[in-house]
Amino acid sequence: MRKGMENLRVVLVGTRNPLNLGAVARAMSNFGAVHLRVVQPYEKAFREAVSAVGASAVLQNAEEFATVAEAVADCWLVVGTTSVGNRELQHPLRSLEKAGAVLRQGMAKGKVALLFGSEKWGLSNESLSHCHWLVRIPTREEHRSMNLGQAAAVCLYEISRGKRGADSRRKTEEKRSAARMETVERIGAALLPVLIKSGYTGARKRELAEEKLRRMLRRMAMSEGDAEVLLGMVRKIGWWMEER
Amino acid sequence: MRKGMENLRVVLVGTRNPLNLGAVARAMSNFGAVHLRVVQPYEKAFREAVSAVGASAVLQNAEEFATVAEAVADCWLVVGTTSVGNRELQHPLRSLEKAGAVLRQGMAKGKVALLFGSEKWGLSNESLSHCHWLVRIPTREEHRSMNLGQAAAVCLYEISRGKRGADSRRKTEEKRSAARMETVERIGAALLPVLIKSGYTGARKRELAEEKLRRMLRRMAMSEGDAEVLLGMVRKIGWWMEER
Repeated sequence: MRKGMENLRVVLVGTRNPLNLGAVARAMSNFGAVHLRVVQPYEKAFREAVSAVGASAVLQNAEEFATVAEAVADCWLVVGTTSVGNRELQHPLRSLEKAGAVLRQGMAKGKVALLFGSEKWGLSNESLSHCHWLVRIPTREEHRSMNLGQAAAVCLYEISRGKRGADSRRKTEEKRSAARMETVERIGAALLPVLIKSGYTGARKRELAEEKLRRMLRRMAMSEGDAEVLLGMVRKIGWWMEER
Repeated sequence: MRKGMENLRVVLVGTRNPLNLGAVARAMSNFGAVHLRVVQPYEKAFREAVSAVGASAVLQNAEEFATVAEAVADCWLVVGTTSVGNRELQHPLRSLEKAGAVLRQGMAKGKVALLFGSEKWGLSNESLSHCHWLVRIPTREEHRSMNLGQAAAVCLYEISRGKRGADSRRKTEEKRSAARMETVERIGAALLPVLIKSGYTGARKRELAEEKLRRMLRRMAMSEGDAEVLLGMVRKIGWWMEER
């Protein structure tokens, strides 16, 4: 396997078509990615794809998750794919051509998740809120939306291109590993009730605030050490406030 | 349309599966190629694909040919695709990564044909004999053969890459200018009393805590916007706590 590719988690959210599941798994196998994760797939489609004659090892070993949060919990970098342009997005957007190198560097450091949404709707705002940034395949403006299997193939081709893993040693030497999403998620979970109790966030706007908070925390490039310190602070503040 | 892409002829030889015909046409549309040519397709598959609901303009305008020779007659450069390694081939072989630039140059000069063989057999020796050279997508040795629609998508992505105007991330990044130290300093100043009052930091260790906090806040690479949001949160929490 190419160096680094073992750190890639391809995450399919709400996929409907078993053919697409199979196609993504095939492209993964072509380009040396092995870890497929599915979040709330259409159950029948998933069973059909896994049990199809000639289903690949990638597909047979796919892990199923109930939520995006769980599917990316052990990853330090979460990147979503989109066919939408810049306008409506609140995330930093990279073209695939630029994203490939950044993803390779990321994979040299630790586990990285690449999310693909459903064929019909793409990634929901909730799913997007788990992402650090987004990648767009440079399709034509007049026909942006790609077939899921083809989009995955193009992304995996770009990610696995070039000097594969050549710079991985330098990166692992970095002392401060990036925060795991699990820790960042905990900060958000601890901070939200504090914001509500303090009156910063109206209780009715809880969901919107939760998403905004999640995005903001991911934009801050924290180390695991700093994230743990911040979590400790927020928890302590939360306990103090609870007693009042 | 991207410059040069109008000179590309995608030639499918002996394609069997109508879904693959549709998938190739869709990828062409995504990446700005318009001229599809088919050579001896399985007639039924071809009719099915062309008449399918939502068949793209690319597919509806596909030209049908009896031989490869006729399909590439007006092209000055003919390139075949293969999943096979170097050993058995009598043609010069370029990796797709290298081939992209050469094809773009070729398309700037005149019509260029890119051939894809049947799903089962690839390009026959007869078809290969029309090619100037071959391109191979850099798939894993253990699983070289790609799905036709995915192979076409990857090739078209690579061929159409390059100068496509500015990366949108640059614009987003400009909006997200780095936080001014003044704002970051204010966050620290607002957070410190909160940490002391909550009991996270002992009052005697105030100075040490202040330094640690300052360093930590600077390590987080915040944008000015996020820093202001964070400052607002901390202040609100602080005010709430002061009243208790």
